[in-house]
Amino acid sequence: MASGHTTAASVRGPRFAGAGRRGALLLALLLAAAAALLPVAEPSCPRDNSVVKDINKMHQSNYGIGGFSHITVAGALAHGMKEVEVWLQTISAGQRTPIHRHSCEEVFVVLKGRGTLLLGSTSLPYPGTPQEIPVFQNSTFTVPVNDPHQVWNSDEHEDLQVLVIISRPPVKIFLYEDWSMPHTAAKLKFPFVWDEDCLDAPKDEL
Amino acid sequence: MASGHTTAASVRGPRFAGAGRRGALLLALLLAAAAALLPVAEPSCPRDNSVVKDINKMHQSNYGIGGFSHITVAGALAHGMKEVEVWLQTISAGQRTPIHRHSCEEVFVVLKGRGTLLLGSTSLPYPGTPQEIPVFQNSTFTVPVNDPHQVWNSDEHEDLQVLVIISRPPVKIFLYEDWSMPHTAAKLKFPFVWDEDCLDAPKDEL
Repeated sequence: MASGHTTAASVRGPRFAGAGRRGALLLALLLAAAAALLPVAEPSCPRDNSVVKDINKMHQSNYGIGGFSHITVAGALAHGMKEVEVWLQTISAGQRTPIHRHSCEEVFVVLKGRGTLLLGSTSLPYPGTPQEIPVFQNSTFTVPVNDPHQVWNSDEHEDLQVLVIISRPPVKIFLYEDWSMPHTAAKLKFPFVWDEDCLDAPKDEL
Repeated sequence: MASGHTTAASVRGPRFAGAGRRGALLLALLLAAAAALLPVAEPSCPRDNSVVKDINKMHQSNYGIGGFSHITVAGALAHGMKEVEVWLQTISAGQRTPIHRHSCEEVFVVLKGRGTLLLGSTSLPYPGTPQEIPVFQNSTFTVPVNDPHQVWNSDEHEDLQVLVIISRPPVKIFLYEDWSMPHTAAKLKFPFVWDEDCLDAPKDEL
């Protein structure tokens, strides 16, 4: 029952069945050239409605963020979830998520590694000097709705791997440049990077 | 920052400090006798509002269910969650959850072991012969809202350990005696066993 992400290459494979070897090669070269020149018609949203999925085979990407890896284990846009969304994320040693907030509940379960949760204030007009709270393997923590926060892999060697649960998907993330940026200046990034390919009609950031 | 569940015994311990050995023994016996006769004034709800919690130290129980273990990792009644709840459950080899349904989303992440998801029908007036879908370590599956289902550790040896995410907590579970029981006859069990000690005013099952 498990099914993984179907790559464009594996979808195209069957088209060559039955064709002669040289014809197939030519067709493949032409398709490759076309794919390189034309805009991608089908975005790489790993939609998959099978009941059971092998997480090892699910679409994984760093979405352009160094030292980061994300899998949408159960998602609104990719899998039709309406009330909860589950992510598996890995943060390399020394790396940090952006400082951000979102108006949803968020629960973390630390599967591997250790790190620091940085938690800003909502009673000041800006996050201010954050609390630094150690997190570790087999710990769980929640981020209160709208609290500005950052997850930092403060270990020098080991990856920090977390399972993340949010409510009210897809997530609407407000990004801060630093802890002194006013809450009102934090910039909405929607859809967030891992949802960009899954939204049929990308919306303006306003 | 981690904090675990404080047992009744450890709370009572300090009361004996400084008393003579025989006096303490007598007091302990009297308290034990009183505890056996009187209703428990403080229920064993592991309320804990610390930001980071060590899952290894959280309250764990089988709630009277053989071959089963449950930890509320992030809960509505115990931890003030409003939109999502996270459980860590272990099902022994050969054991099954009850056949049940609930009108919330549910996501499973299989941390260890293997098993079978049994999924009944909502288009018949009763669940009927269920689909049997294999699940395995590092797989994820979702149970559609209101679908009658059962999770069976169909392995002969190994525990099945799952992280479970639900929306709309606390969970309202409708129990079926078997797969031919009409949906309308399934019996609401609320609060469910792990929420019983956390509900301030236990409600009638109607």
